[in-house]
Amino acid sequence: MKNLRFGTCLPVFGQCADRYVQSGYKEENFTMRQMFERVTKVPDITGVELVGNWHINDENFTEVSGMLKDCGLNVCMVVPDLWTQGKWGSGTFTSKDGKIRREAIEEVKKCMDWAASVGCDMVDVWLGQDGFDYPFQMDYQEAWQQIIEGLRECCDYRKDVNVLLEYKLKEPRTRLFITTAGKTRFLINEVDRDNLGILCDLGHAQAAGENMADGIATCGELLQAIHINDNYTLWDDDMMVGSLHTIESIEAMYWLDRVGYDYYYTLDVFPYREDGIRAAQESIDWVKGYYELIDRIGKERIEQVIKGGDATEMSKMMREAILGVR
Amino acid sequence: MKNLRFGTCLPVFGQCADRYVQSGYKEENFTMRQMFERVTKVPDITGVELVGNWHINDENFTEVSGMLKDCGLNVCMVVPDLWTQGKWGSGTFTSKDGKIRREAIEEVKKCMDWAASVGCDMVDVWLGQDGFDYPFQMDYQEAWQQIIEGLRECCDYRKDVNVLLEYKLKEPRTRLFITTAGKTRFLINEVDRDNLGILCDLGHAQAAGENMADGIATCGELLQAIHINDNYTLWDDDMMVGSLHTIESIEAMYWLDRVGYDYYYTLDVFPYREDGIRAAQESIDWVKGYYELIDRIGKERIEQVIKGGDATEMSKMMREAILGVR
Amino acid sequence: MKNLRFGTCLPVFGQCADRYVQSGYKEENFTMRQMFERVTKVPDITGVELVGNWHINDENFTEVSGMLKDCGLNVCMVVPDLWTQGKWGSGTFTSKDGKIRREAIEEVKKCMDWAASVGCDMVDVWLGQDGFDYPFQMDYQEAWQQIIEGLRECCDYRKDVNVLLEYKLKEPRTRLFITTAGKTRFLINEVDRDNLGILCDLGHAQAAGENMADGIATCGELLQAIHINDNYTLWDDDMMVGSLHTIESIEAMYWLDRVGYDYYYTLDVFPYREDGIRAAQESIDWVKGYYELIDRIGKERIEQVIKGGDATEMSKMMREAILGVR
Amino acid sequence: MKNLRFGTCLPVFGQCADRYVQSGYKEENFTMRQMFERVTKVPDITGVELVGNWHINDENFTEVSGMLKDCGLNVCMVVPDLWTQGKWGSGTFTSKDGKIRREAIEEVKKCMDWAASVGCDMVDVWLGQDGFDYPFQMDYQEAWQQIIEGLRECCDYRKDVNVLLEYKLKEPRTRLFITTAGKTRFLINEVDRDNLGILCDLGHAQAAGENMADGIATCGELLQAIHINDNYTLWDDDMMVGSLHTIESIEAMYWLDRVGYDYYYTLDVFPYREDGIRAAQESIDWVKGYYELIDRIGKERIEQVIKGGDATEMSKMMREAILGVR
Repeated sequence: MKNLRFGTCLPVFGQCADRYVQSGYKEENFTMRQMFERVTKVPDITGVELVGNWHINDENFTEVSGMLKDCGLNVCMVVPDLWTQGKWGSGTFTSKDGKIRREAIEEVKKCMDWAASVGCDMVDVWLGQDGFDYPFQMDYQEAWQQIIEGLRECCDYRKDVNVLLEYKLKEPRTRLFITTAGKTRFLINEVDRDNLGILCDLGHAQAAGENMADGIATCGELLQAIHINDNYTLWDDDMMVGSLHTIESIEAMYWLDRVGYDYYYTLDVFPYREDGIRAAQESIDWVKGYYELIDRIGKERIEQVIKGGDATEMSKMMREAILGVR
Repeated sequence: MKNLRFGTCLPVFGQCADRYVQSGYKEENFTMRQMFERVTKVPDITGVELVGNWHINDENFTEVSGMLKDCGLNVCMVVPDLWTQGKWGSGTFTSKDGKIRREAIEEVKKCMDWAASVGCDMVDVWLGQDGFDYPFQMDYQEAWQQIIEGLRECCDYRKDVNVLLEYKLKEPRTRLFITTAGKTRFLINEVDRDNLGILCDLGHAQAAGENMADGIATCGELLQAIHINDNYTLWDDDMMVGSLHTIESIEAMYWLDRVGYDYYYTLDVFPYREDGIRAAQESIDWVKGYYELIDRIGKERIEQVIKGGDATEMSKMMREAILGVR
Repeated sequence: MKNLRFGTCLPVFGQCADRYVQSGYKEENFTMRQMFERVTKVPDITGVELVGNWHINDENFTEVSGMLKDCGLNVCMVVPDLWTQGKWGSGTFTSKDGKIRREAIEEVKKCMDWAASVGCDMVDVWLGQDGFDYPFQMDYQEAWQQIIEGLRECCDYRKDVNVLLEYKLKEPRTRLFITTAGKTRFLINEVDRDNLGILCDLGHAQAAGENMADGIATCGELLQAIHINDNYTLWDDDMMVGSLHTIESIEAMYWLDRVGYDYYYTLDVFPYREDGIRAAQESIDWVKGYYELIDRIGKERIEQVIKGGDATEMSKMMREAILGVR
Repeated sequence: MKNLRFGTCLPVFGQCADRYVQSGYKEENFTMRQMFERVTKVPDITGVELVGNWHINDENFTEVSGMLKDCGLNVCMVVPDLWTQGKWGSGTFTSKDGKIRREAIEEVKKCMDWAASVGCDMVDVWLGQDGFDYPFQMDYQEAWQQIIEGLRECCDYRKDVNVLLEYKLKEPRTRLFITTAGKTRFLINEVDRDNLGILCDLGHAQAAGENMADGIATCGELLQAIHINDNYTLWDDDMMVGSLHTIESIEAMYWLDRVGYDYYYTLDVFPYREDGIRAAQESIDWVKGYYELIDRIGKERIEQVIKGGDATEMSKMMREAILGVR
């Protein structure tokens, strides 16, 4: 079977809050060390995503590196915090306030440095607060230009770290700017830098009206990170992998292989009411199982079915693999 | 395994038109006899749904009965045509035109008679043109009252035929009146007749924001017919069973069993671009396979998992059944 | 013009947190007294909704009453807290844990007492944690039965306080049980108590696939409270009234009048990035403006247009009222 | 006020069929000449869109030109028929059948010729059958490449006719390939031809999760045609302009002006149950009214509000313009 590397976002192992239960659904309040230790309970996981300032900063840098070493974990991604503080609420790269725009760009650069110094060559720029809520609230073209220029500055800051764009249709703003795989590729064309790539959150792809496989194929060679989770397609529910979309998930895995994806499979699940450790293990076991099933079917057969384009053939192939030959 | 009876709507075996390809995606133009013969190519199917006036009427009654006998097929449902003619466009039971309301009710009664005389004890009242498109277009309360009174008259017409209500959120109107399982049960409370039940189209349930199993459980003992198909949850795509929602479909089958459902599993698939015969066979094979899988898991285990309510346990159970034990 | 009473939920005047900015988008951390004082900055508002335990409890009861008196505010609703604590996460009335179910019911009763003693005759039972996230997680019929029995106990506890049900399709669970106006009425039929009514959140109605006016008409005489806000129809965005759905909002106001609604118009807006006081004022000014516009058109003309059912007539009527006669 | 040119698709003035009422909701069956004459009943309309083969072909070319002349109408767009015949059902530019791909490209070229000879310099390439319905049905990357190459061939065929791409998320396929403004711009980057532009159907934009204004701004200088209509945001309902989204529509008009849009405002409304002539007139009157309202507010004020980004200011501005100053 394909050799897979698994990573995780830390909220998978944390308290999981929402706008109603703001202190989190879990009774315990985990420290960062405790979260790392919880991660080690899922031996498949070898990488963690750290959010700038929260998990990693100039003060705790050495300490965090030590903890991770103790736990045998790598940093698979550093994520600039451009979305957890009130000051980012009305935008970062597209803030109407030049000072905020500056801070946001510097934040990304700091994260690029932190990433480099822990041996990670990518940062995940998710502009979750850059968008709008109401009509007549933004100059869409000016904002787009600001994103382009901000990204150029970040990419130029250091070439040894890749800047990945994570797209999402909405939330926390009711509308975001970097929404779909296609629009992200258009943006990357405009920015025109070599160290710019894409992080595809498979749940975001679904909630943007994409079949996950189609999203992955659109990202193509620019895809350098994924977040895995599932949802009901209308919202970023961050459910466990495998929950709902069996066949589309299998197709997504097949296409990750097709585009030569060879990076981390990173959990971005919010197990509000579940045990995080078991939710992580389950999610990983689904991914492994999907690939085993693909191997059982055989990639040649899958390729033949796609070439044929006959939906009943596809149906038969998947049914026999999932429910058994009749 | 559970003893299953399969039925079908005739469009499964027809040309399949939409608003763009109005003459249908298939080259051939099938006669009714040809459609019946096509149905026999799928030996599991023993029942067909006939639409009043189109498939069955006072003129062709004997002929159709003969054809069906020749083909060894039963009539599992008669569906009053309240949605294929321009005259129904602005409503039937809720038309602003009293003459149209009267015609609509008489249409249902005629279908009840036809049903009875072909040995079928149910009609499917789908008020697909009763709703609205624009604001300020309907007096919602008056329309609701008209539906109640119309249904009472139909139910009282003859007690030996059950009137089933088929709910749907929208299409062809942008909004319909009988939208969800819950609202249908409220309506049935108001109508207050014993021979009134529900037809749950599993695709309509999904497109109404219901998990199929939840819709089935809400219908409960009033559920006397189902339409089976799948969709992307935002529209009545009428895709082949098994296409997308594997786990939710298995849960739906489990709940059909739980509520003691013992009627037809009727295909309402639109294989616009597929071979209808194979699409029907595939859909049936998925249903059978779902029930075999439920048997393999064992209902006791499923019950235990539901009692526990632990989503990771559910996940493990489904994963092992679908992808194999690791 | 219609005499209108306005109320408000307190988050309108608070920090407004979401799952990303858990400490809230506003810099200040308002005390309850401060929130009340902020409410008085919007003179139209005469009532506030208090959430049990958070805003009102046995300890602070006298103090809160005093503060409200000082501010000239009434309590227009008491809302049992069945959704802000981790312990409610897997359900309240439908928890698998009998102890939790008991606590939940007692919570409602306590709120009924608190309500009565501050001169408010209604509580808002929003079962926001009662639903499910994953398939095979709930026994839907058992849960429904538990809701029925729990509500009967609450209603029977004291007849002088009305128990209102607030429906919502989803969030915080990915699926809730009390989802639509129709299903709520079905539930009320089953519970069969006189002091049971409905709170219709106009945003929830939209996100449940209802036109607001249709939701209101379905609630009918059982409608005893509303929450006002707007959204993009796919999620409970809790935007300012008037933001997006102009014509449908006007129709909703017209229907509130039609069903004889004579209770509070209560703001449930989340002004994450706006000034709460101005957001509240704006929302109220839209409501007043809607009713003034209805008066300018004249209810007779509106009635005529509805009777006619001609969408182009409706369009002309609204266009001339909104954009002026050409 | 802005000088506006109005065009129309012919179905606005036709029978309007859907998959249920396949013969159309209107009793009369209009000939092309009758449709043109009906168009003249709406004097604002000066252009019509002709669909290749149906409305214009080598045989009827002179006759149609004559009719249009008689009616004083221009051809504002020629639309290659790549979606009304069963043969296109499984794709045109991306068909698995090389012969079909060839036919499709030739179809576009023929339309370019017809367009040129009636004095129209654009064709609307809407690849409505190019997409997929089921997983594992398409090689997304190969299809994308075929679209790129097909478009290059068309663009190169003659430089004096612009090829416009019309994007849509879905329907008639459950998923299409050219889905959003962003993805269209990415595609145009890849095709890299000067005579390639965009037709933005404002209803498609909404149903793709875009605010119309944002879609327009994303299209920017490449926007050379629009289709106007409204919908409930989840489906291409093709409702009359002005029906639902008042404020977002005003914003869209403002942005059309901002990007310097100076082409036809073309009706793509399906008045299934309305009189087509009055539905067209109403739609046009809304557009004119929107621009008058923008003039009353003043573009400077709008610009100031956008610059400020304060949603309550926006709300006040729109409220006063729509409902009057309080």
